[in-house]
Amino acid sequence: MVHPRVASTETQPHDGEGELLPTRPLRATEIERFDDEADVVIVGFGGAGASAAIEACGAGARVLVLERGSEGGGSTAQSGGILYFGGGTPIQRACGFDDSVEEMFKYVLAASGPNPDEAKVRAFCEGSLEHFAWFLEQGVEFKPSFYAKKTTEPPTDDCLLYSGNEDCWPFNLVARPAPRGHKPKTTGSAGGLIMKRLMARATALGARVMENARAQTLVVDADGRVVGVAARVLGERRVVRAHKGVILTAGGFIMNPRMVAQHAPKLLAVNIQIGNPGDDGAGILMGVGAGGGTICMGEGFVSMPFYPPSKLVNGIIVNEQGQRFVNEDAYHGRTGDFILRQSGGRAYLIVDNNSYGRPISGMQLKAAEETVAELEGALGLPAGSLTHTVDFYNRHAAAGADPLFHKKRDYLAPLSEPPFAAIDLSIDKAVVPGFTMGGLDTLPTGEVVSAAGTVVKGLYAAGRTTAGIPRSAGGYSSGLSIGCATFFGRRAGRAAAATTTERHGEG
Amino acid sequence: MVHPRVASTETQPHDGEGELLPTRPLRATEIERFDDEADVVIVGFGGAGASAAIEACGAGARVLVLERGSEGGGSTAQSGGILYFGGGTPIQRACGFDDSVEEMFKYVLAASGPNPDEAKVRAFCEGSLEHFAWFLEQGVEFKPSFYAKKTTEPPTDDCLLYSGNEDCWPFNLVARPAPRGHKPKTTGSAGGLIMKRLMARATALGARVMENARAQTLVVDADGRVVGVAARVLGERRVVRAHKGVILTAGGFIMNPRMVAQHAPKLLAVNIQIGNPGDDGAGILMGVGAGGGTICMGEGFVSMPFYPPSKLVNGIIVNEQGQRFVNEDAYHGRTGDFILRQSGGRAYLIVDNNSYGRPISGMQLKAAEETVAELEGALGLPAGSLTHTVDFYNRHAAAGADPLFHKKRDYLAPLSEPPFAAIDLSIDKAVVPGFTMGGLDTLPTGEVVSAAGTVVKGLYAAGRTTAGIPRSAGGYSSGLSIGCATFFGRRAGRAAAATTTERHGEG
Repeated sequence: MVHPRVASTETQPHDGEGELLPTRPLRATEIERFDDEADVVIVGFGGAGASAAIEACGAGARVLVLERGSEGGGSTAQSGGILYFGGGTPIQRACGFDDSVEEMFKYVLAASGPNPDEAKVRAFCEGSLEHFAWFLEQGVEFKPSFYAKKTTEPPTDDCLLYSGNEDCWPFNLVARPAPRGHKPKTTGSAGGLIMKRLMARATALGARVMENARAQTLVVDADGRVVGVAARVLGERRVVRAHKGVILTAGGFIMNPRMVAQHAPKLLAVNIQIGNPGDDGAGILMGVGAGGGTICMGEGFVSMPFYPPSKLVNGIIVNEQGQRFVNEDAYHGRTGDFILRQSGGRAYLIVDNNSYGRPISGMQLKAAEETVAELEGALGLPAGSLTHTVDFYNRHAAAGADPLFHKKRDYLAPLSEPPFAAIDLSIDKAVVPGFTMGGLDTLPTGEVVSAAGTVVKGLYAAGRTTAGIPRSAGGYSSGLSIGCATFFGRRAGRAAAATTTERHGEG
Repeated sequence: MVHPRVASTETQPHDGEGELLPTRPLRATEIERFDDEADVVIVGFGGAGASAAIEACGAGARVLVLERGSEGGGSTAQSGGILYFGGGTPIQRACGFDDSVEEMFKYVLAASGPNPDEAKVRAFCEGSLEHFAWFLEQGVEFKPSFYAKKTTEPPTDDCLLYSGNEDCWPFNLVARPAPRGHKPKTTGSAGGLIMKRLMARATALGARVMENARAQTLVVDADGRVVGVAARVLGERRVVRAHKGVILTAGGFIMNPRMVAQHAPKLLAVNIQIGNPGDDGAGILMGVGAGGGTICMGEGFVSMPFYPPSKLVNGIIVNEQGQRFVNEDAYHGRTGDFILRQSGGRAYLIVDNNSYGRPISGMQLKAAEETVAELEGALGLPAGSLTHTVDFYNRHAAAGADPLFHKKRDYLAPLSEPPFAAIDLSIDKAVVPGFTMGGLDTLPTGEVVSAAGTVVKGLYAAGRTTAGIPRSAGGYSSGLSIGCATFFGRRAGRAAAATTTERHGEG
């Protein structure tokens, strides 16, 4: 999982001088003189931006990256660094897992939510082995080992893990399960390592990186073509000409409370914003200003990382009716999304002495009692509700079955060893990490399209600035964000570099 | 409720000639000659548009309405015609109900979802008595009578009803319940009557109505101010100048499958689109093209109108785990939204012989058996699941209590008289009416604002083209759509008419 390391900010995408609005592009005719120029200008030097830079440079384009922070890395650098690959990677094969492009496609399509972008899913799955090989070329290493425990991120340097719902009901009915989360070889989080490699490669290939450069708005010509970017660099405005195209890879909008409320109100429940302060929606708004359409803006990731330790998955999660409502072995993003749907956002993880362990995420113990009936009373659950739920669960768990939610046999054992405890997974009491999934509408090439479906010339985007493949909290897998950001970032870089346009005169 | 009368169409908001896109406004400098002009140009002659026209005319503005159909009325004319009023209307008082602006405010705010527009809710509630009086002035009559049965729309000419969740858990904990749905005095649906009165008043006050006039895109001047509309009128393009402003009241986007998939994927479950063919999102896209921001695009109404007959509410609704998950007396929009969240979208209404009645909406019987255990088997529910649920429910219902979901005592009676039956409320088997709730972001005045929060000069909007007060399927009440469309339509009409701007030269 992408680990939260940055708290909420009230960052707003406004120009400090109150002059430039992201949604109001400058007209090229207003620009007296461009301060800089390149073939391809990339906004943001995170996973998507660095990948775009590498490919654009590789295609011979002169690349300038505008990075808002004092150093690049973006949210990818702050993340666990899990990448989603499949179709039979060398790591999958070495670990004895059978996977195919078609099984990966079926899973990713089903996991994308009710409106998958089939063309993007197809490209992503068919290109997965090549994308894995590309990471090796960038100097990223993977250890051919499988981490079997239920976790959000391997604490070891192991690589492969089930990072989503691949082997969980009901997704295990859709496609043959295979683990597809790949963590680069390093102990703990690998996001920093990934970005170190990608940024080094981009600069080695000739990409110029301008740091402390906050893009403010795009520059368009009389035909509406995007031809540049205005940025604030250490307090001064600099307007940069882009001869071939601008690529927006500036993150999502989880750090912008106003946008979250307007577009993805369910994410108001998030209390740990996953991202970096630049995820304030400015990239999306700039794209909108130039005519880009936004899609899936209401979708987002709402997590409930109650495990590890993985033995907690042996517990059962109940709502304020004392009823189960999800298979507890589901990915924590699916669990969070389901808890959000329960009345009052209330949920408790019920464990017995055998399955108890202190959650590393900081979830709190709500009650501990000698009997389930006493626990039911302590939680204020209706009399007879939790006791029935536990009885029913135990009876079937003893036989290795979960007829209600089909939790895997590995996590089925009667809850019978006192004391019994409840860990509070209520939305307003728990640690709830989250991020946005909506953004600019793009073609699989990375070209930004308008709300009417027409291409916005000269404008590309990738990463969280776009609505990519994952567009459902209920189906998210760790590794899809960085996997897609780098995959479609590369495509955007190549597409922008391949743009054949007459070199525009200055203004 | 707003009754579905129009099936889905594949209408797309594209110009037949492939030239004009709603998202690409014309520039005033491109217009050689305007074909017509007015102070205020209104796109759409439904509830919002007619109300805007009346107020703009009343303020002395010259008004031109562009109506896409061969006659006006919009979705309001096709609806049940329930209007949401409160704070102590003459009807509420005559029927013995105590209500106040503050109680209405508390309820509407809570029902708006997690991101209410408090300023709009405040204005709507404080202005409710005046808005009711205004309807009387337009010649709309209301009978001072209360319809007590649970229904989607009174089949009689009675006026007042509980049209939402006012007296249902958990909303009954938030504000003192009062019925606020007001249906004009006519037997059955009243939407046509409302529009007949409003359209007649608008034209009597001097509004010109151009029918068969499909607005295609807006016209903006060099400063980005909206100064007109381009429309297709009986096959010919006509460009209309708006000296004071353009008001977009062109409906939502439930008839545009592409937009539904992109923005409100949960509404893909809707199989009866509530609206008229003009609800194809063109109004929203035109606003976007001129710089308007959209909000709440993921929100929408997903209904499950299993009642009337109201005795069906005595049944219990269970999911494929055989568990209840909602108070069955909740408003059908809330019930639909909750069913959508169950695994597989599966749900069954379980009734006994006493509570059975044929649903008028066309929901189908799934199974009927002599015992609950047999019904459980016939439905393929896990053994012991439904039987426990019914036992638990019956035990408490006999004592007049529902400790799980707090259904009102009126609908609590043990399910004990064989045979027992299940009516299929599964999303893919049932009648699922729905409509969109997202749209242009507006101020309480009706002014459209950009994604950055700045006013788009010369542009106003109301009705489903905007994201108004109701923005949560779980909290919707019948009457809020037409109530808000007319209330904020009036405000937009007044605001546009009050615009003081130099009369622009032609082009």
